[in-house]
Amino acid sequence: MTEQKHILSILVDNQPGVLSRIAGLFSGRGYNIESLSVAETTDPLVSRITLVTKANAPVVEQIMKQLHKLINVIKVHELTGSSYVQREMALIKVQARPEHRAEILRIVDIFRCKVVDVGQGHYTLEVTGDEDKMDAILNLLKPIGIKEIAKTGIIALFREPK
Amino acid sequence: MTEQKHILSILVDNQPGVLSRIAGLFSGRGYNIESLSVAETTDPLVSRITLVTKANAPVVEQIMKQLHKLINVIKVHELTGSSYVQREMALIKVQARPEHRAEILRIVDIFRCKVVDVGQGHYTLEVTGDEDKMDAILNLLKPIGIKEIAKTGIIALFREPK
Repeated sequence: MTEQKHILSILVDNQPGVLSRIAGLFSGRGYNIESLSVAETTDPLVSRITLVTKANAPVVEQIMKQLHKLINVIKVHELTGSSYVQREMALIKVQARPEHRAEILRIVDIFRCKVVDVGQGHYTLEVTGDEDKMDAILNLLKPIGIKEIAKTGIIALFREPK
Repeated sequence: MTEQKHILSILVDNQPGVLSRIAGLFSGRGYNIESLSVAETTDPLVSRITLVTKANAPVVEQIMKQLHKLINVIKVHELTGSSYVQREMALIKVQARPEHRAEILRIVDIFRCKVVDVGQGHYTLEVTGDEDKMDAILNLLKPIGIKEIAKTGIIALFREPK
């Protein structure tokens, strides 16, 4: 059975313990969560968790059934297989020696990033995009020297009929 | 003792169970995690967790000590109190009735968002910024009608000396 990437979008009560139980459902089976984002929705009592995991389809189905059973889980959707918009964001601190600055700014321009901080020897960039764009920019910045990175993990919403 | 917002940045081994244990440290004390983002760094064996919690200072200190003791935790930093860059991202699906479209596009323009999907009756916007900007745009979009939202939670990196 091949393991594929699955994106789950989960609405939960904004209460202590929910995240730990949900993460535990995956680790209990030895499945890693590749990325996860959780934050309040417009209703402060409700949070949305978006998580990405690699597993085969029957395992994901099982996990979704068990998610539905957790009392603080309101809704569970799998986005994979449908049409959806996905984005992630990263803050990337890159070494900015004088001889590399023009090249970094070219990359910023091409990928429509933003320079959000400038230090003595580094620039911090804000990048948003899908996974392919993120991989592409990281591959270009790696040889220049990435000092630190913080990524959000993927968030996603269904597309609606045109 | 007043409860304040704390941003923790945690480097961990990219292994099943780590996230669940870390989230459990907070819920075990009855403290809620307001937002959390976890994703791989440039080293696929290492992930970075950025989390925001409201707690008083001694509790955060205690939690940080216990985080240090977890075997899969590599580094823990508290960003609050230092100089740091923080950003979050949201995908916002907003109702786009014909009479509201010009107003939505004005907001997109002012806040430098992107329209990432257009359906029959909605636009999906990508917004990045700090918390104040996010609050401001949500307050403007709410009366127009927010259908769905997915937020990443805050990610942050230390600023370096100028």
